[in-house]
Amino acid sequence: MTVYHAPTRDMRFCIEELSDLEAIGRLPGFEAAESDVVQAVIEEAGRLATEVLAPLNPEGDRNGARIEGDDVRETPGFAAAYRQFVDGGWNSMPFPTEHGGGGLPSIVAFPVAEIWQASNMAFSLCPMLSQAAVEALIAHGTAELQKTYLPKLVSGDWTGTMDLTEPQAGSDLAAVSCKAVPQGDHYLITGQKIFITWGDHQMTDNIIHMVLARLPDAPAGVKGISLFLVPKFLVGADGTLGERNDMRPVSLEHKIGIHGSPTCVMSFGDNGGAVGYLVGEKHNGMSCMFTMMNLARLHVGIEGVGIAERAYQRAARYAKERVQGGAAGETGRVTIIHHPDVRRMLMTMKALVEGMRALCVCAGSAMDFALHSDDPKEKARNRERLDLLVPAVKGWCTEEGQEVASLAIQVHGGMGYVEETGAAQHFRDARIATIYEGTTGIQAQDLVGRKILRDEGRAMANLVADIRNTVQKIAQIGEFDDIENSLRIGVDLLESSTDFLISHQRDDVHTAGAVSFDLLMLTGLVTAGWQMARAALVAREKLDQGAEGSNFYQSKMVTAKFFAQHLLPRARAYGAAITAGSAAMMALDENQF
Amino acid sequence: MTVYHAPTRDMRFCIEELSDLEAIGRLPGFEAAESDVVQAVIEEAGRLATEVLAPLNPEGDRNGARIEGDDVRETPGFAAAYRQFVDGGWNSMPFPTEHGGGGLPSIVAFPVAEIWQASNMAFSLCPMLSQAAVEALIAHGTAELQKTYLPKLVSGDWTGTMDLTEPQAGSDLAAVSCKAVPQGDHYLITGQKIFITWGDHQMTDNIIHMVLARLPDAPAGVKGISLFLVPKFLVGADGTLGERNDMRPVSLEHKIGIHGSPTCVMSFGDNGGAVGYLVGEKHNGMSCMFTMMNLARLHVGIEGVGIAERAYQRAARYAKERVQGGAAGETGRVTIIHHPDVRRMLMTMKALVEGMRALCVCAGSAMDFALHSDDPKEKARNRERLDLLVPAVKGWCTEEGQEVASLAIQVHGGMGYVEETGAAQHFRDARIATIYEGTTGIQAQDLVGRKILRDEGRAMANLVADIRNTVQKIAQIGEFDDIENSLRIGVDLLESSTDFLISHQRDDVHTAGAVSFDLLMLTGLVTAGWQMARAALVAREKLDQGAEGSNFYQSKMVTAKFFAQHLLPRARAYGAAITAGSAAMMALDENQF
Repeated sequence: MTVYHAPTRDMRFCIEELSDLEAIGRLPGFEAAESDVVQAVIEEAGRLATEVLAPLNPEGDRNGARIEGDDVRETPGFAAAYRQFVDGGWNSMPFPTEHGGGGLPSIVAFPVAEIWQASNMAFSLCPMLSQAAVEALIAHGTAELQKTYLPKLVSGDWTGTMDLTEPQAGSDLAAVSCKAVPQGDHYLITGQKIFITWGDHQMTDNIIHMVLARLPDAPAGVKGISLFLVPKFLVGADGTLGERNDMRPVSLEHKIGIHGSPTCVMSFGDNGGAVGYLVGEKHNGMSCMFTMMNLARLHVGIEGVGIAERAYQRAARYAKERVQGGAAGETGRVTIIHHPDVRRMLMTMKALVEGMRALCVCAGSAMDFALHSDDPKEKARNRERLDLLVPAVKGWCTEEGQEVASLAIQVHGGMGYVEETGAAQHFRDARIATIYEGTTGIQAQDLVGRKILRDEGRAMANLVADIRNTVQKIAQIGEFDDIENSLRIGVDLLESSTDFLISHQRDDVHTAGAVSFDLLMLTGLVTAGWQMARAALVAREKLDQGAEGSNFYQSKMVTAKFFAQHLLPRARAYGAAITAGSAAMMALDENQF
Repeated sequence: MTVYHAPTRDMRFCIEELSDLEAIGRLPGFEAAESDVVQAVIEEAGRLATEVLAPLNPEGDRNGARIEGDDVRETPGFAAAYRQFVDGGWNSMPFPTEHGGGGLPSIVAFPVAEIWQASNMAFSLCPMLSQAAVEALIAHGTAELQKTYLPKLVSGDWTGTMDLTEPQAGSDLAAVSCKAVPQGDHYLITGQKIFITWGDHQMTDNIIHMVLARLPDAPAGVKGISLFLVPKFLVGADGTLGERNDMRPVSLEHKIGIHGSPTCVMSFGDNGGAVGYLVGEKHNGMSCMFTMMNLARLHVGIEGVGIAERAYQRAARYAKERVQGGAAGETGRVTIIHHPDVRRMLMTMKALVEGMRALCVCAGSAMDFALHSDDPKEKARNRERLDLLVPAVKGWCTEEGQEVASLAIQVHGGMGYVEETGAAQHFRDARIATIYEGTTGIQAQDLVGRKILRDEGRAMANLVADIRNTVQKIAQIGEFDDIENSLRIGVDLLESSTDFLISHQRDDVHTAGAVSFDLLMLTGLVTAGWQMARAALVAREKLDQGAEGSNFYQSKMVTAKFFAQHLLPRARAYGAAITAGSAAMMALDENQF
């Protein structure tokens, strides 16, 4: 029931055939990223996922984290699995070698992250949050803080959390009210944080919280927030653990899913103040948080892919086993995979998963060049592309992850609505992904505001040009007429929708907000459709060369066609909604709702 | 938290302004359906829902039905609420007066059903299934069976169930294997049924099961199934209850939602055979079932509307209370209803709910004329329309009900993922509606097979003509340009997609299955969009006449515009997917999934 096999072939396709692993392997710091290493890493991650993490996934759902006094008790079995994860070097794998990491590029680390999320989403949130904390510490922490905290966070001997949200400060972090009062070399933190993922557990002997709070002299709003490192147990100069800091989990949320992941209300300073250390400059916490958030957002997008892949595998297996009715062109009773409407659902799932995965690896490639290239132009171009893709990856992949998880239930029919089958858990787990690390609405706002209006559409114009380039290549191959046509309509809509936003925002302040969701979905869809078109070109080329694995390449071409024919046309609905603007959307009075 | 107010104004609009209540009130049997009676019925139903049923809804979720020995114990409080429901005459309200019913037409009964579903979906499944059993008994039962069972089923003193599904026979009822052996004036039934909604409970002193089974001489397949009435307690000639029949609930399903509704595995004949009585002719059980199924399918479609209305109300209330961030054009912190993207979600929900409700009442009107008209042509025309609309109502409204329920979570942000808020329950409850009473795929198959291909598109052509008629009327009013344009594109696509299906099905047996889902969604969307366009016309006319309630009519016009601008364009995505046909969908081998 809980079998999961990492889709290693498609992952290697994304890494080595759709992206340029060789070029990335030549970037400083990525020397380890050779083809055989990558293959071994993916295979080994898949093995741990299949053998250890996936079997624990239903256990986390049924026997979720509990609070006992001031301690959270995680699901039985999770601690041992986490130890295996750490001992295998998986926690440190994505970090730079100079900090003790494995030095693997994002184009590899992202598929590996997908494997963790697919096999056990609730479990995987723990190392995911640790990774965000590490990124912030590397980018903004003092040498002393790094020396004390980084090695154990990188290895995974300690875990990390992000403590942003307060009851009155959700999407609006400007409203953060936790306080930090200076005292000698540290600060005393007081206040309450909510929705703290893996805020407490017993898997490691320390937990390092990255907390947003305000100094006494802080200006109001978003420019008065600072970032603090607050350890669960104080750490002595020699690295030994001291007494428990003045903080505790107060309660756990009762959630629709991810029951294995404790979502804590954390109270800081009930007895005078929790000891914390400033990370980065005073009042500059938001920009430090953005360092963490970009990667966290990409990882949540990848979560959308992972949960979709898992749900797809479960549905495909069921569709091959379940016998029901006869089908046109078949004799006798058949397995339901022979029914065209079940095929439609499976192909939709498969095409979305492969499109999402390719989009994520595409963002990973941009991240690798943006962070590691020593060519300033290449670096800047990729930074711009990455910034544009982050909200699309996070927003679109999580929305589609939910669509796929819901389709998996539908393929199961009545059995899908029953918990024992397992499809239900993916559906419930997936529902969080469009909410945390910034809702889809926040991603959409980021896309239209910071990523399009701020540079007046330059980054989007570059993306459009790259997609048109692929359309031209596709046009030279007769068999891909449908892909060419559909992608051309999609990219035209992406361009005209961007123009609509830029020109109408001048006269109507509501335009940006009104079109943002549809433009986000359009961007994700067309960019994924572009990657699928590129995949079809690569597959055609490999087949023409007589490369091994024709089964895979044939399947890839069919899936790319399906994506273009059946999914990309959604672009027309998004495009029409965008050019309708804000009028009907904003016309009603509050009392008319 | 659990407040629900029936949307009585919009319901009366659908009944009296969008449909022709006066004409329906003149049909034989509907004499009671006068405007003031209708208004009183809707208001009173709303009161019971608000005061009794809605407050029990979260209780049903948290403290669902349990099995103890051979008895199912329903949620505490449900029995008393059911007694109030019966004593108020609500169970008998939709039935014909000659059988002790209230004689209210479907255009009224459907909105009342929506009120029950919205306030407490799990509870309302019980009278909904009873109603299906009553319909079958009225249509196919002998006078003797009717005399014994009908009065108590109509009043609600007994409840009814539908027992179709078996483990190997889900969507494919041809595989039913339960046995019925004749013995004197009755039959002995043996076998197991699954997914039996409200299969057992303690709210009434008898439960009447309508069971599909095979006689010993039955041919294989769907033409060898007969329908039997199997009471939980045997009923004597004088109406007194005798011993318990040989049947019992074996277990309850552990489901994602509707925990208050016991979903039973029922075992018949463990001790020799349960006493059952033939309903209708031998081997004709499927057509008897279709009598029950049509109404049940419409009611599940209405469930989609009800759960969507409930989720919408909750989200709108939260959006008016929750303060978060600033908004363009506003000063200071604002409630989130001022954020355009939250508006987009609320308007999407509102427009879908109103479009779905109008579509359901439109189907109700067709049902009223089809069943009660004494003009054969009017009767036939409405029967044809009803048959076409049933799969669209069931399929489209349940799919969109889930979209709306999911949007309600999204409006709540992180609080939506937490169970205590209540939005989560609607999301979990709603997920079943695209599955039971025939999955969306089964509805789609019914639409393309029985409702379009069988009459070579005649019923659809009539629908298309009616919609074009509205497009013409709309064109005469300048302010509705957007509605005209969008509805014209939609109806063109409905026509061309139907043509595509009919012409391609001849050469490719997979066409019907491959296009069925998209054609179903297209039909539901465009038909609802048509009703919203009609609603805009009515609202404009009422405003021009200076009718009371300009606030409502203004809001209706805006909502109709939003539907046309932001939702109807989805027709383009469905249309493009349809004309892509089955090629890419069916191309992969089983091993490529």
